[in-house]
Amino acid sequence: MKIDILTIFPEMFEVLNHSMIGKAQENSLVEINTVNFRAFAKNNQKHVDDYPYGGGAGMLLMPQPIFDAFETIKGTKPRVILMDPAGTRFTQQKAEELSKEEQLVFICGHYEGYDERIKTLVTDEISLGDFVLTGGEMAAIAVIDAIVRLVPNVLGQQASHVDDSFSSGLLEYPQYTRPQEFCGMRVPEVLTSGNHEKIRQWRLKESLRKTFKRRPDLLKKLTLTDEMTAFLAEIREEED
Amino acid sequence: MKIDILTIFPEMFEVLNHSMIGKAQENSLVEINTVNFRAFAKNNQKHVDDYPYGGGAGMLLMPQPIFDAFETIKGTKPRVILMDPAGTRFTQQKAEELSKEEQLVFICGHYEGYDERIKTLVTDEISLGDFVLTGGEMAAIAVIDAIVRLVPNVLGQQASHVDDSFSSGLLEYPQYTRPQEFCGMRVPEVLTSGNHEKIRQWRLKESLRKTFKRRPDLLKKLTLTDEMTAFLAEIREEED
Repeated sequence: MKIDILTIFPEMFEVLNHSMIGKAQENSLVEINTVNFRAFAKNNQKHVDDYPYGGGAGMLLMPQPIFDAFETIKGTKPRVILMDPAGTRFTQQKAEELSKEEQLVFICGHYEGYDERIKTLVTDEISLGDFVLTGGEMAAIAVIDAIVRLVPNVLGQQASHVDDSFSSGLLEYPQYTRPQEFCGMRVPEVLTSGNHEKIRQWRLKESLRKTFKRRPDLLKKLTLTDEMTAFLAEIREEED
Repeated sequence: MKIDILTIFPEMFEVLNHSMIGKAQENSLVEINTVNFRAFAKNNQKHVDDYPYGGGAGMLLMPQPIFDAFETIKGTKPRVILMDPAGTRFTQQKAEELSKEEQLVFICGHYEGYDERIKTLVTDEISLGDFVLTGGEMAAIAVIDAIVRLVPNVLGQQASHVDDSFSSGLLEYPQYTRPQEFCGMRVPEVLTSGNHEKIRQWRLKESLRKTFKRRPDLLKKLTLTDEMTAFLAEIREEED
């Protein structure tokens, strides 16, 4: 996968050189490339922003530098992503879809916003959620992280993302590691019992419990097995 | 505001030294401090993670290094934030609430997850959305950015965040800057008319249109003025 990022803050994306995404780059599983579109500004001061027509606070990114920068990196039909709070909410399904693409281009805004005409380059307007960031960079970083970890061979253990929250449609069950007792808090006995079937049941039930309490909307999207339906009946009584 | 971040990847947070959040730190409007909890691991190999009880793929963060690191930075009643996909969805309202705190502590996980007992330190479990990241760092970076920009005097123009998407309850209207014509695309005439009242009306209507088309859920939460109701009636006809 090739990822090209149009940004006036290329140094921010150094955060992607660490940890798992850094290793994915070292292992050539993904190529991440930043393009500073300020270099393409045709004015002498290399300004990339200007005042909004009609007045108002803040500045807007001009179309010309972004259009010209885009010309130099567009391959054949890349997905072009603009991070914008008015876009479609980013989800794990979207991450999975985008992880199968050959080339992704991210256009990152800063300042107040964009000239609307920039959106004619864009295939996907994506929002991280109902909140506002100082720029599209922070949002692009999170989205790139979520996508790249799904590219084959990026996660150390291939199995590792199958148990994630959302992949199963349920929130994750509580987990424990050593020591068995810490500050008076003990690991649930079933987890040290060695009984794999009981452990599986406990985990499924606790996943269902957490999802029932925190995200009942996710349960509605699931096809429940008989076992899950029985656990949910127990949970409703226990939490009553 | 003081922000302490417990993480084994302190270098990732260098991204917060740029742009607006960097300036906020230079101007002492916010102090951002990372603590590598690996330094607190009591084992000889400085491991911070271990296998989950009950089996399964991946590793979990042990409670001891995080509890000991937390002891060294906790002030008086900080808000302690754990980024977790099973947490409460982060919103602009939450950003505004947290921007008024004196101290925030972020606990950032990596690997598969946390020992459940770590959550006894936590006041707020926050989720960026229904997707999975390689670690809590990327999520914490976005949340810190959204919070710090709301701290008084951080944004260059104080007025600047009042027009944001979500602050008004509506998505932002389309914006345009120079040139008036670019690649055959012209700025809407009203914006170059100089008629402030018409510009205000156009912007309100276009905000309503975008919200109506993309996020009708947001409209339900608003108290509509007569003007807004009239525009929405027009929009329903126009978009039919």
